[in-house]
Amino acid sequence: MHDHDKAHAPLDDIRAVLAAMPGPDEKAMEAARARDAVLTKPAGALGRLEEIALWLAAWQGRARPSAERIEVAVYAANHGVAAQGVSAFPAEVTAQMVANFRAGGAAINQICKSFGLGLKVHELALEKPTGDITREAAMSEKECAATIAYGMEAVKDKPDILCLGEMGIANTTIASAILHALYGGKARDWVGPGTGVDDEGVAHKARVIEKALALHKAHLDDPLAILTRLGGREFAAMAGAMIAARMERIPVILDGFMVTATAAILHALDDHALDHCIAGHTSAEPAHAETLRRIGKAPLLNLNLRLGEGTGAGLAAAIVKAAVATHTGMASFAEAGVSED
Amino acid sequence: MHDHDKAHAPLDDIRAVLAAMPGPDEKAMEAARARDAVLTKPAGALGRLEEIALWLAAWQGRARPSAERIEVAVYAANHGVAAQGVSAFPAEVTAQMVANFRAGGAAINQICKSFGLGLKVHELALEKPTGDITREAAMSEKECAATIAYGMEAVKDKPDILCLGEMGIANTTIASAILHALYGGKARDWVGPGTGVDDEGVAHKARVIEKALALHKAHLDDPLAILTRLGGREFAAMAGAMIAARMERIPVILDGFMVTATAAILHALDDHALDHCIAGHTSAEPAHAETLRRIGKAPLLNLNLRLGEGTGAGLAAAIVKAAVATHTGMASFAEAGVSED
Repeated sequence: MHDHDKAHAPLDDIRAVLAAMPGPDEKAMEAARARDAVLTKPAGALGRLEEIALWLAAWQGRARPSAERIEVAVYAANHGVAAQGVSAFPAEVTAQMVANFRAGGAAINQICKSFGLGLKVHELALEKPTGDITREAAMSEKECAATIAYGMEAVKDKPDILCLGEMGIANTTIASAILHALYGGKARDWVGPGTGVDDEGVAHKARVIEKALALHKAHLDDPLAILTRLGGREFAAMAGAMIAARMERIPVILDGFMVTATAAILHALDDHALDHCIAGHTSAEPAHAETLRRIGKAPLLNLNLRLGEGTGAGLAAAIVKAAVATHTGMASFAEAGVSED
Repeated sequence: MHDHDKAHAPLDDIRAVLAAMPGPDEKAMEAARARDAVLTKPAGALGRLEEIALWLAAWQGRARPSAERIEVAVYAANHGVAAQGVSAFPAEVTAQMVANFRAGGAAINQICKSFGLGLKVHELALEKPTGDITREAAMSEKECAATIAYGMEAVKDKPDILCLGEMGIANTTIASAILHALYGGKARDWVGPGTGVDDEGVAHKARVIEKALALHKAHLDDPLAILTRLGGREFAAMAGAMIAARMERIPVILDGFMVTATAAILHALDDHALDHCIAGHTSAEPAHAETLRRIGKAPLLNLNLRLGEGTGAGLAAAIVKAAVATHTGMASFAEAGVSED
């Protein structure tokens, strides 16, 4: 990074990286498609499992995709806007839940154990919440760029597949603010109950977001500026993880509302930026489905979850594992001596 | 069974068993609900996973449900109606696929391996197809009752959860005939491409079903008569498995179109007969979603599958395992020192 170069804005490196994104490996995908066609099932009968196998082949760049090493990376951060009373839980719950992740007591721990997924929890300066977006920018450009760079390290162990998740009291308000800034409409189109605030709480979140957007309105014409001013550290880190995964050809499973709002920032920068990502699920947060529609992702699961932590992505990873197991493990018609139609 | 007692119809025993079905264990369910309320997550945030944990507790009759031993039972049978050219595949594929199941080469084998599920394949007199329903009854009452009784043995190893699946060339035609007889409408409302017939093939299936219903129309006022005259051995055996699971309080995960058509027969006999069952998925077969709606089941997954073999139920079993893992493994707010809202 060139943080000290006045002529070089800190986020320009990110734009440069995005401009150099690799595309899918069409040859590997065609090889996987050819294998799929001879497996002992009617053509297309495994539906989305077949699509997943081909998508993995294309991004991993190998005809036989692998789902042996799946890692869930969970980013935790605190938000100045929590002081506006936008969550049903106090801000200290972020750190308490990080301790719970480390002790193995959270939902995502059990899901990782169920399906043999790795879990890495990243605390992002919990003791220093980002700026309250109703009063100031969440981050400086320099801080945002540094946090994106930190997130890029998520791929350093080169997992076969990366699942992204987050934890951060008040972060549904941040996600809603990002989406309202990206997509317009009314603030209330993008807010919901989050961890469980009531109707008045939802209306309050909308007012808080309107106030924030009014404050920052002169600076919201660029997706990375939206991330900087209205975002949070987990959003910046997850953006970095998504970008780094693309550069390393590691397929990504998106989790819920916060992860998808992060993805929407990259999608606004380049509508092919998410081609290596699938949407793990659609959550109960009302604006999540619309956000998925805007970024062109059909969710794999719809289980009415609204927990975050990577839980929806982790459950989707089980389906992805089965997609790889069927693609790589099934016999062909010839091997099994089964008559073709 | 009293097959030789003229005064006692062979299927009356089945009706007697259904009349004695046990209900859910409300006390176990309340205990599970109380535990769910203190786990480290916002109330309701695990959505359908929470519902599944409570449903398992209610039917297993224990506050902490178990998903250690999940068994997939696949029933394979042949159908006289295959001679009417209703499938894209020849009838010998049923036996070939049974061999593939035994050799470990089919999709369901890979799914079972992925999630540690047991697999049992039941061949139901493949060399002797049932009667062609356009010319005669599929089975005699005696044969249907004996096959239901055979299916009841599916629970003899007392798995924690039973997944049902099937294989049988031409059996989507049988399922469509059953549903048309149960629910009325037009034959074409209930038919679809099955393993992959074209539009003309679908129209042909509808005509075959119309012919069968015209032949049997004087005998279709009773769901078990529909099973006998229009069904097949895998349908009868799966009906037996569903009934026996209910008696033994073993929760059942339904698979696709054929399994759901079987469930619809029991639902028509008693609208509480399926309270111990969940729908694993909704398949690509067009009438499946409507059948699920009629029996009041919201499918857990929607992955555009149309393979059968228990594949959708096996994938759903992964979600069920995660539901149990979160319910039993997560820390409480007090244990984790997390502030409640």
